[in-house]
Amino acid sequence: MDAREYAALPDPFPMWRGSALHGARIAYETWGQLNAARDNAVLLFTGLSPPAHAASSPRDSSEGWWQGMVGPGLSLDTDRFFVICVNSLGSCFGSTGPASIDPATGKPYRLRFPDLSIEDIARGGYQTVRSLGIRRLDTVMGPSLGGMVVLAYAALFPGAARRLVCISGTQAAAPFAIALRSIQREIVTKDPGWRGGDYGADSPPITGQRIARKLGTVTYRSAAEWQQRFGREPIRPDMASGGPFASEFAVQGYLESLAQRWVNLFDANCYLYISRAMDRFDLTAHGEPVGLYRRAGLESALVIGVRTDLLFSVTEQQAVARALEAAGVATRFAPLDCIEGHDAFLVDLKTFGAEIGAFLASGS
Amino acid sequence: MDAREYAALPDPFPMWRGSALHGARIAYETWGQLNAARDNAVLLFTGLSPPAHAASSPRDSSEGWWQGMVGPGLSLDTDRFFVICVNSLGSCFGSTGPASIDPATGKPYRLRFPDLSIEDIARGGYQTVRSLGIRRLDTVMGPSLGGMVVLAYAALFPGAARRLVCISGTQAAAPFAIALRSIQREIVTKDPGWRGGDYGADSPPITGQRIARKLGTVTYRSAAEWQQRFGREPIRPDMASGGPFASEFAVQGYLESLAQRWVNLFDANCYLYISRAMDRFDLTAHGEPVGLYRRAGLESALVIGVRTDLLFSVTEQQAVARALEAAGVATRFAPLDCIEGHDAFLVDLKTFGAEIGAFLASGS
Repeated sequence: MDAREYAALPDPFPMWRGSALHGARIAYETWGQLNAARDNAVLLFTGLSPPAHAASSPRDSSEGWWQGMVGPGLSLDTDRFFVICVNSLGSCFGSTGPASIDPATGKPYRLRFPDLSIEDIARGGYQTVRSLGIRRLDTVMGPSLGGMVVLAYAALFPGAARRLVCISGTQAAAPFAIALRSIQREIVTKDPGWRGGDYGADSPPITGQRIARKLGTVTYRSAAEWQQRFGREPIRPDMASGGPFASEFAVQGYLESLAQRWVNLFDANCYLYISRAMDRFDLTAHGEPVGLYRRAGLESALVIGVRTDLLFSVTEQQAVARALEAAGVATRFAPLDCIEGHDAFLVDLKTFGAEIGAFLASGS
Repeated sequence: MDAREYAALPDPFPMWRGSALHGARIAYETWGQLNAARDNAVLLFTGLSPPAHAASSPRDSSEGWWQGMVGPGLSLDTDRFFVICVNSLGSCFGSTGPASIDPATGKPYRLRFPDLSIEDIARGGYQTVRSLGIRRLDTVMGPSLGGMVVLAYAALFPGAARRLVCISGTQAAAPFAIALRSIQREIVTKDPGWRGGDYGADSPPITGQRIARKLGTVTYRSAAEWQQRFGREPIRPDMASGGPFASEFAVQGYLESLAQRWVNLFDANCYLYISRAMDRFDLTAHGEPVGLYRRAGLESALVIGVRTDLLFSVTEQQAVARALEAAGVATRFAPLDCIEGHDAFLVDLKTFGAEIGAFLASGS
C-alpha cells in the first residue's frame, strides 16, 4: 500500500545557499496518464507537513491530504491531467532530508544537512518533472509553502510551466509569520530532548514538537471558526490531562489530539529546516517580481487568498496577482471569505475546488 | 521612589471559586485629590502584566505603564479626578499572589495559592476603594484583563460605579484566545526549570517564560504593524544569538529584547494564575449580561475595541456595548482602526486619549 515512486536527483545536486547533496531523491506520486504530447502534466507542491500522497489511488487506497480534489472528474481532473505530487526536498516522507542517511558518513544528516531553501524544493520538483520526460508543465500549483515554491519555480525555470496556481502563498515571508514560526522553532530547540539535533530516532523532542504544533495549528485557522466550532465548550473528561493548569476547554483537547498525531509523523529537524526556509524566502533575491514573471513565459495564473488567513495575509496574495498582471500574465485573483483561515484550502474543498477546477478547465 | 500604598483586605478574604486568603493586601497608587463629596474617583485596573504605577508622580518619578494618559490636563485629568490604580490580586507587584508568603506556612504560596478568578481581582479593587471611604466611583475603567475585571465589577457590586470604561475587553474569553494563552502556559510548565511551581526565587523557568512572552507579544500586536515597522530587516549583529537556527530578522530581536525584560520582572506562577483566570472568565456565570448591567446602576459607558485585535476581537467589544445599551446604559461604542492590535491602548495614546478624555469630560 505505497504508491510512491522516486526520482534520482542529479549528483551532485547543488543547493541554493551552497554545498550539495549526493545520491539525493524525490518521492512522488502520480494520478492520471501523461498524454502523447507530454503536455498535460500538473505539478503539485505541498504545504509544510504533507507527504506526496495527495489522494487515494489503486496502489494506495488510503485518503490523501487533498482527497476529493484530485481524481476523475474532480477539480484536478485526472481524466484530463497527469497530476504529479512531490514530497518536498528536506521533508521526511521519502525525499532526501535531514533525517536521511548521509552517504558520506552512513549516518543521518541531522544538522549536517546543508542549508535548505525554497529554491531547492522547487528544483527538486523540476528535476522530478524532467526525469519523467516532461519539458513543459501544463500547470505548476501549490498551497502555503507550496505557494512560495511555485513562485520560485517560475523565477528559476523560465518556460517550464504554461500556467501557475498560487494558493495562500507569498513572495516573501512577512515579519508576523516569521515571528510565529521562529517561536515554534525555539520551542523545539529549547526542549532538552532535542539535544542539539542529535536526538535518537526513538526519542524525539516530543514535548517541544507537540507544543510547537499546537501553536502552528492556531496560526493555520481563524478565531471566528473556533468560536463557531468550540465556543467555551468544556473539554471531554477523557481528554483532560490532569496536573496543575490542565486543559479545561474543548479547543485545548482538539489542539492536543492534532499535535499528538503530528509528533509521531514528522521529524523535528526536517520541520526546523523547512520552517526556516519559509522565513528566508524572498522572491526579490532573484530580481524584480514583474520582470521574473515576464521571463517565466506563463500564459495564465490563478492566485487564491483567504481573508481570514493570519499567516499569509490576503494582501500578500494580492501583491502576487498584481505583479503577474503587470507582467502580462492573464491572472485571476480570488480573495475568498472562507472562515477557516490559512488552512481553508484543506477544508473548504467546495470553494477551492470550484476556483481551481474552473481555472484548469479554462485553458485548452 | 515608591508611590505604592497598601489596602488590607478583609480577613478572611473569600475567593470566588472557594478557599480564602488571610492577611492579604492590594498595592495601589493614586493621583489627584479625592473631593469632599468623595465622588470624583476613577478606579483603574491594569492588563495582565503592569503594576499599579500607571504614571509618574512626586513620590515616584519613573514612567508608568500609561504615562501620558494620567495627569493634570490629561485624559484621566487629575485636576478633576482622583485616580486609583490597583495591582491585580494574584500579581507580584505588591498585591498578594502566588509569590507572596502564605502566613499559614511562612513560605511562598506557589501552587498552594487558591484558584484565582477575575471576580477576585474585581473584589480586591472594590475593597481598596472601600478602604478609602469611597462609596461610589465616578468611573471604573480597565484595558485587556482590566476590561474583563470592570465587567465583573459591575456585575458583583451594583451601584458601586456611576460610569464604566471597558477597553479591549470581553464578557467571556474566546476559544482562540484560550488556545493561545494555554499554549503559553504549557511552554512555561513544560520548562524543566518550573519544577511543578517550586522553582527557587533566583532560578525561575526563564526559558519557558521568555518564549511564552514572545508568543504573548505576537498576539498583542498586528501583522500590519510589523510589516510597517520591521519588514524583512535583518537582525542587528549584536542581537543575533548564534547557534543552530539562530535569529536572523529584526522582528526576532525585538521579541527577544522585550521577553528578556519581562522575565526579570514577572513571577511565573503569578503569570500562570492570572492567565488561567482570563480563560475561565465568563460573565454569564453571574446571569444574563443585560440584566446584570441593568442592576449595576450605571449611567453611562464607553466601550473601546480595535479592529486589528487578534486576542479580544472587536465583535466581543461590540457585544459588551450592545448589552449595555439594551440595559438602558447610555453607551458609546468606539471600534478603532489603530494598527497596533490588542496593545493599541498602550501605544496610540492620541486616539485612546481622545476617546477616554471626551467620555470622562462629558459627565458632570
